[in-house]
Amino acid sequence: MNIIDIINKKRKKQELTDEEIKYVIDNFLNGTIKDYQMSSLLMAILLNDMTNEEIYSLTKYMAASGEQLDLTSLGTNVVDKHSTGGVGDKTTLIIAPIVASCGVKVAKMSGRGLGHTGGTIDKLESIPGFTVNLTEKEFINEVNDIGLAITSQTENVALADKKIYALRDVTGTVESIPLIASSIMSKKIALGAKKLVLDVKVGSGALIKNIDDARRLSRLMIDIGKHSGIDVICILTNMSVPLGNNIGNALEVSEAIDILHNHKKGSLYELCVELSSYMVSLGLKISYEEAKEKVLNNIDNDEAYDKFLELVKTQHGNIDKLPQEKTKYEIKTMTEGYLVDIDAYKLGVLSMSLGAGRLTKEDKLDYSAGIIVNKNINDYVKKGDVIMTLYTKKKITNIDNTIFKISDKKNRNNKLIYEIIK
Amino acid sequence: MNIIDIINKKRKKQELTDEEIKYVIDNFLNGTIKDYQMSSLLMAILLNDMTNEEIYSLTKYMAASGEQLDLTSLGTNVVDKHSTGGVGDKTTLIIAPIVASCGVKVAKMSGRGLGHTGGTIDKLESIPGFTVNLTEKEFINEVNDIGLAITSQTENVALADKKIYALRDVTGTVESIPLIASSIMSKKIALGAKKLVLDVKVGSGALIKNIDDARRLSRLMIDIGKHSGIDVICILTNMSVPLGNNIGNALEVSEAIDILHNHKKGSLYELCVELSSYMVSLGLKISYEEAKEKVLNNIDNDEAYDKFLELVKTQHGNIDKLPQEKTKYEIKTMTEGYLVDIDAYKLGVLSMSLGAGRLTKEDKLDYSAGIIVNKNINDYVKKGDVIMTLYTKKKITNIDNTIFKISDKKNRNNKLIYEIIK
Repeated sequence: MNIIDIINKKRKKQELTDEEIKYVIDNFLNGTIKDYQMSSLLMAILLNDMTNEEIYSLTKYMAASGEQLDLTSLGTNVVDKHSTGGVGDKTTLIIAPIVASCGVKVAKMSGRGLGHTGGTIDKLESIPGFTVNLTEKEFINEVNDIGLAITSQTENVALADKKIYALRDVTGTVESIPLIASSIMSKKIALGAKKLVLDVKVGSGALIKNIDDARRLSRLMIDIGKHSGIDVICILTNMSVPLGNNIGNALEVSEAIDILHNHKKGSLYELCVELSSYMVSLGLKISYEEAKEKVLNNIDNDEAYDKFLELVKTQHGNIDKLPQEKTKYEIKTMTEGYLVDIDAYKLGVLSMSLGAGRLTKEDKLDYSAGIIVNKNINDYVKKGDVIMTLYTKKKITNIDNTIFKISDKKNRNNKLIYEIIK
Repeated sequence: MNIIDIINKKRKKQELTDEEIKYVIDNFLNGTIKDYQMSSLLMAILLNDMTNEEIYSLTKYMAASGEQLDLTSLGTNVVDKHSTGGVGDKTTLIIAPIVASCGVKVAKMSGRGLGHTGGTIDKLESIPGFTVNLTEKEFINEVNDIGLAITSQTENVALADKKIYALRDVTGTVESIPLIASSIMSKKIALGAKKLVLDVKVGSGALIKNIDDARRLSRLMIDIGKHSGIDVICILTNMSVPLGNNIGNALEVSEAIDILHNHKKGSLYELCVELSSYMVSLGLKISYEEAKEKVLNNIDNDEAYDKFLELVKTQHGNIDKLPQEKTKYEIKTMTEGYLVDIDAYKLGVLSMSLGAGRLTKEDKLDYSAGIIVNKNINDYVKKGDVIMTLYTKKKITNIDNTIFKISDKKNRNNKLIYEIIK
């Protein structure tokens, strides 16, 4: 077996065997297969596609290529959640306590942010004292004790996926549905998930540009799940509708409290209710309607908020000391009309430049830095209205004036949830 | 401009601009574009094809990426010849003197062999004293003096092509018609060719597997030629018909003499007459028929052979001292029937193992080592007949018994020349 023959097979649209895919993963990880060979194979995969059997093999060997977590001791009502990425996505902070308050266990491993996207772990670390480095034992114990724990993802999960992803990022091979599906699912398999709700973002700024691709990705992840003993539900959501108003670590924690404690309504609230309802339905094996009733109840009666406070306390955080930046800059609109679009990517980049995100892995975060968007999609804005407020210790130079799009007609594509696939 | 955007364009089947292709060539050569990015782009090119405009740009910038030879001082009746590769291909040794004897100048830069294929320069060096390292001035002077010179190709021609070819070889991206065409033509442009006859080999063992691909490659090379001011004629030949009987450096020189001096007939003779006739026709601007008459005359009256001797003498070779290996091994057939196929690749590998070829660039050659195939295609062989004779100083262990295929029916696909495209 050798890599050139394997590349040639894929180039000629022939199906790779399980052994061939194992050979690729093993030998790419140990350095026998070079980056330039792997990128050639990845481009051939992107253009010539993969069969489900090939995707199952790829996912399986990537999942097995690093540390694996065994959550079977937690029983069967543990549910995980994953989003295909986004700016200002603080849903985990809100959903995890809601779901746990309904009696479904949440054992969540999360990552840090890089570039224009934030990470749940950074957001939690903005709470003074909050510990994100739990040992596996502490993690399991906490889930058993309070039904919920959030810890920093080990660096050693699905190592082949990590190495392949880094290569895809610089070789124009990111946008392959089989590769996206196997990347997400390999990590979930390695982390011991058995029930999973996936938030699949669709839109021009997202990895997945159109609804057809989102459907194929969702069905593929459901198939991989079936093949690996994981129940998967996919929620296809509109990426161009921003989730809430706050971007930046402490600002996002603060917005999570706004939802959980002050019951602030809007697109973020709606999405959290949907995702939570499907998670509770999966975990407790009850109907979506029953689950949704529980979810709405537990938000209204603050049981979800109490669970959030319990999580913070158990992980040694002090929510009363959440940092707040005093220096702020109010950005005003120059035109009048309906706010029809917000460029989430550009907002993410701006937020990073304020100190809320990292350009390189080594950058230090300013937890209090960030942005509050003061208007919502389809709000009518007048000249001189404050459209966003920036919080930062840095000097503000010039602001990209293409972040917001204002028009004389409302945006009709502001539907948040496109469809559910299960 | 950046390489990821360029890869993404090609991935989406969009046409790259001249500037983008220049960017790729320049930055791959200077190391800014990494091997793993280039191989991803090459696979996208292989699978998504290139337009003629893209191919012209690629060829132009590869040709300009190294030293360039200016042969205009030699006038307009200079003709070059190139073969897309083969085992035992000693046609240059035979054709160059024939064509020069007809009054067409031949200024030939050739390479060395690697792996299972031999190189004209190695073959000439098997003649004791033969100098292959002419300076540009010596080279031009010799062509002006005797109408013919053969020298070792400078290492610095079409450097981008060289670097790209090395990468294609290990990333499954060799078999792309646009990439093959631009690779061949970029070198010919850099070497100053204005008239060119191309021997395009077709067959399962060749780079080009079928006649349709060979036609497209040929038309493409003719188009690139037109675009760059080069007259190109392509001769599509059957790769599975071995050219002559000898493989190995001195053995091939000896076979060239057999054709030129002893007028030995067969497939090698036929191909040499065809290629020479098209070269003479191009060079002297006369009809193919007229040219062929001259060619046959000059073989018959030994003017071609005299030109060969003149070449050897001018480049300080002593043809009387051509080395001959005394130790030989006769390999006999075990079956009876028609010899229907000879695996040229396996013969090449065997010849290399006898000392006639190099596995790595650093290997030293044994000029006298090699193989004589004692039978021709469609000869009837009996058990115990000698089918080939091996010449080597090395110990013979076991011989691959799948080199020759013997059948009870003749091979009907033994046509040597499929068609001419111009």
